[in-house]
Amino acid sequence: MPRYKLTIEYDGGPFVGWQRQKNGRSVQLAIEEAAAAFAGESVVVKGAGRTDSGVHALGQVAHIDLARDWPADTVRDALNAHLKAEPVVVLAADVVANDFDARFSAVARHYRYRISQRRAPPALDRGRVWWVASPVDDKAMHEAAQALVGRHDFTTFRSAECQARSPVKTLDRLDVARDGAEVVVAASARSFLHNQVRSMVGTLKKVGEGRWPVAAVAEALAARDRSRSGPVAPPDGLYLVAVDYWLG
Amino acid sequence: MPRYKLTIEYDGGPFVGWQRQKNGRSVQLAIEEAAAAFAGESVVVKGAGRTDSGVHALGQVAHIDLARDWPADTVRDALNAHLKAEPVVVLAADVVANDFDARFSAVARHYRYRISQRRAPPALDRGRVWWVASPVDDKAMHEAAQALVGRHDFTTFRSAECQARSPVKTLDRLDVARDGAEVVVAASARSFLHNQVRSMVGTLKKVGEGRWPVAAVAEALAARDRSRSGPVAPPDGLYLVAVDYWLG
Repeated sequence: MPRYKLTIEYDGGPFVGWQRQKNGRSVQLAIEEAAAAFAGESVVVKGAGRTDSGVHALGQVAHIDLARDWPADTVRDALNAHLKAEPVVVLAADVVANDFDARFSAVARHYRYRISQRRAPPALDRGRVWWVASPVDDKAMHEAAQALVGRHDFTTFRSAECQARSPVKTLDRLDVARDGAEVVVAASARSFLHNQVRSMVGTLKKVGEGRWPVAAVAEALAARDRSRSGPVAPPDGLYLVAVDYWLG
Repeated sequence: MPRYKLTIEYDGGPFVGWQRQKNGRSVQLAIEEAAAAFAGESVVVKGAGRTDSGVHALGQVAHIDLARDWPADTVRDALNAHLKAEPVVVLAADVVANDFDARFSAVARHYRYRISQRRAPPALDRGRVWWVASPVDDKAMHEAAQALVGRHDFTTFRSAECQARSPVKTLDRLDVARDGAEVVVAASARSFLHNQVRSMVGTLKKVGEGRWPVAAVAEALAARDRSRSGPVAPPDGLYLVAVDYWLG
């Protein structure tokens, strides 16, 4: 049974999130239905990361097993034909070894968070950015963010619903920079806790507004106390940009 | 009665177009309803250009007259508050002289057309680009486009429903250039005929695909015959970028 690695782009707006759920349509289900319609068999899609409702992906990764040995490009094009009615697209399909696992083989996940700083609300970027009209101090945010980089207990920035066994993670990168009328946060790690990026962004925004001193972020982290986090930033501005693997 | 110039951004996807129509919701009507709700009076919104259904705007311009002398920023913010549920945003409101007319005072209109050249269909840019997966020759398109620049009878590139008195227009700019995975067409003129930009883009694509020689575009123009146009490009990729005025 050949295994295929899929690289996927989607607009998270109309979905309940990546993962199959009872209360609505998920990206995973959309791809599973497309795969079943194309291959004529029941297919399970396993993703690298479970993005929440409203969170977007430029390069989510998943794997599927198919009974027949289809050329990889046929898999990509057939899935896209069946996904035509939805804002989900397979950017690439590649044949991979049977021990490749989109989730467990991943060595790095890269997220981007877009904060729109313009005076007027977004129209074309509606649902694609967090609109924060008052200017934030991106340099103070970047400075505060550096306290989060490294191996830490991220209990403060972890959703109460997080299912990870340990709250200890290694954050490799958390950069905050201005890009035109936006402030963009780039976060990289082998893996993240549930709501970690959005909790960190919501906390850094407090610093950017001058409501929290820079040092308060390190203190919140050290407290290992969920109630010390800033508010969780909305899903609109979050993008799963890429997932890295050694092989595949 | 003070007059306000409005600069407007919108996603054309959910609308029947700029202009009020019987068969659905227009951008003009959305703004008129917002203005009436805010100012408590019936308001007519007059736009610089009538974009078709599915065509977007980064900087459409319109004017309105209000009975009361509101500060311009109040007009902008109040309209945006009432437009909250729709992908339409007032970027700026400015008080202008009573002889300012968004349509008749305009001295230049600038459009952009985005052609996505990537292998996979758009997901996040769904409805925002024309997806043309096969590579087109943007240099040949640009060369052919230069035959259209200048003062010409544009009958070939004019919709049968065009209401302009004369088919003679002066096209100031028609540039085709590659920008990453996109080919972008930039068109500027004092005014355009109905469907002119989309007809020119659909024709240039024929050249880009190698189906038409470069010289065929000049010949189609000279024929002054609607049947000699290439197909009308879809609205998805078209953006009204800006409208210029001497004053206001």
